Amino acid sequence: MAATPAATPPPGYPATDRTVPTRSRERAAYDREVVHALLDEGYVCHLGFIRDGAPVVLPTLYARYGERLYVHGSTGSRPLRGAAPGLPVCLTVTHVDGLVLARSAFHHSINYRSVVVHGVAHQVTDAQERALALDAIVEQAVPGRAADSRRANARELAATAVIRLDLKEVSAKVRAGGPNDEPEDVTLPYWTGVVPVARTYGTPIPADDLDPAIALPAYLPPAGPRGAV
Amino acid sequence: MAATPAATPPPGYPATDRTVPTRSRERAAYDREVVHALLDEGYVCHLGFIRDGAPVVLPTLYARYGERLYVHGSTGSRPLRGAAPGLPVCLTVTHVDGLVLARSAFHHSINYRSVVVHGVAHQVTDAQERALALDAIVEQAVPGRAADSRRANARELAATAVIRLDLKEVSAKVRAGGPNDEPEDVTLPYWTGVVPVARTYGTPIPADDLDPAIALPAYLPPAGPRGAV
Repeated sequence: MAATPAATPPPGYPATDRTVPTRSRERAAYDREVVHALLDEGYVCHLGFIRDGAPVVLPTLYARYGERLYVHGSTGSRPLRGAAPGLPVCLTVTHVDGLVLARSAFHHSINYRSVVVHGVAHQVTDAQERALALDAIVEQAVPGRAADSRRANARELAATAVIRLDLKEVSAKVRAGGPNDEPEDVTLPYWTGVVPVARTYGTPIPADDLDPAIALPAYLPPAGPRGAV
Repeated sequence: MAATPAATPPPGYPATDRTVPTRSRERAAYDREVVHALLDEGYVCHLGFIRDGAPVVLPTLYARYGERLYVHGSTGSRPLRGAAPGLPVCLTVTHVDGLVLARSAFHHSINYRSVVVHGVAHQVTDAQERALALDAIVEQAVPGRAADSRRANARELAATAVIRLDLKEVSAKVRAGGPNDEPEDVTLPYWTGVVPVARTYGTPIPADDLDPAIALPAYLPPAGPRGAV
């Protein structure tokens, strides 16, 4: 979500050994605005953590609230149980924008925009911050929805674990544009270009037990493609 | 890609401590057909590995070839460099199908289909298998394209690293259907239902230097939504 707490953050995130890619460095960006915009465009991240010495990557909902990311789940879920003392995580958000078809198989690629956040996640113990995080996660996916739903009650808040990851060690990576063919390949008889890819929202499907008198909210995403198309 | 090598695999993947979720176990599936179909529907995965004791999650292209997954990248890329002796990884593929708006903030969710693969990835040293993997990765994103492009030459194959992860410890997880509101919430005055989400392909954009005489290939994905919409 776009809301930002009082504290004014520095203009960009510092490049670190972990956030400088070993390849295609020109695609990396550390600008706060770029990173925030990419995070705000999504609501599903892939959260990586270590369990029993092995990596685990799970898709989960998230929210950006200023310079914090919130991820929620059941108090029984693995990453959240481990987060009490502080859980090293890598949280990645990826938008796929296109299939890049070069003349050579080698130069095939995709256009994408991704954000990778490294850090140590901590359980949110303060009930007020946990409630704020739950609202933020609902707002991240459907802005305007939190105020138009029943807020979590004490029992639900107690059953919900929230972890917080501060935006400190962060980088964005963007691949855009057409194929990069070898000069000697440009005369080859193969079609070359980009097939745009985007996320699309369909016509909302009311629940079976929805009171027909309740109208479709104006804040729902209109049907149609988002992003690169 | 759909092609399957000679060996006939057992009907399902064994449930292990790592592949039995701690929550929503009814959403987990181990059927080979389900897992294969979900993997074949995608081409971008999130690959998790451990670097300097911390988790790293990067988006990357992949291909399924029978009971193997292939991921490729530069020989300089971090996960691939580490894969020579065998790199513990978690490879996750996620399809988002819908936003689930319950009457209570607590029961908001998303409809999704994901596959999580645990295992040890190994570098593919055999040049023939590496060439096969590169074709498979092109085919995974655009079936029919590998044969309609210039295959990788010796120099390109030498510059490309491929890691292989066999499908042994695998599970799928699927959330579908409408919201699950609390019985006491069904009379609340909030709209409730599902907003479908799908991947959409746009109209292909030819490269600036494409010979206008070269027609759009029939194997390109037709413009329009895929999946849940």
